Amino acid sequence: MHVTLVHVHVKPEHVDDFIAATRRNHEASVKEPGNLRFDVLQQADDPTRFVLYEAYRSEADARAHKDTAHYLEWREAVADWMAEPRQGIVHRGLCP
Amino acid sequence: MHVTLVHVHVKPEHVDDFIAATRRNHEASVKEPGNLRFDVLQQADDPTRFVLYEAYRSEADARAHKDTAHYLEWREAVADWMAEPRQGIVHRGLCP
Repeated sequence: MHVTLVHVHVKPEHVDDFIAATRRNHEASVKEPGNLRFDVLQQADDPTRFVLYEAYRSEADARAHKDTAHYLEWREAVADWMAEPRQGIVHRGLCP
Repeated sequence: MHVTLVHVHVKPEHVDDFIAATRRNHEASVKEPGNLRFDVLQQADDPTRFVLYEAYRSEADARAHKDTAHYLEWREAVADWMAEPRQGIVHRGLCP
């Protein structure tokens, strides 16, 4: 399992826009053939901070996500809503 | 979905012990009635850093995990293997 945790800090006035756009990205991403999870999390004590939990069977499957129409639309939609550049940290999934 | 991301930094000489103990915790935790995910991740560019991705149906289910024999055994087993105190960050799961 190839997992990327994407940490996103959103401008407060765009939190609702960000959730709506990211929900659309989630709905399409979970239908990708190599996708295992695409969970969208909002930090409990700071609603402007989010984590996208993106798990794929392989690194190639994760790379293919970056070429999808829904990812490219999401990336463009959220570009001006970030309070700082987002950060993706790659992990090996040991369990399951 | 109530999600805790537990960030763990392990002493290099105890990485293998930590993985074995955490695998046992994973195997029992996914059988808890309110558990949705209990993923164990190792950071790709620093194998001494781990994330436990613990998703439960409710906060009460997450709390109940802390009373299980497998959690208490894990907590005791890993106590001396931490390079620094672990940090749990609570999130609301928006999708799914």
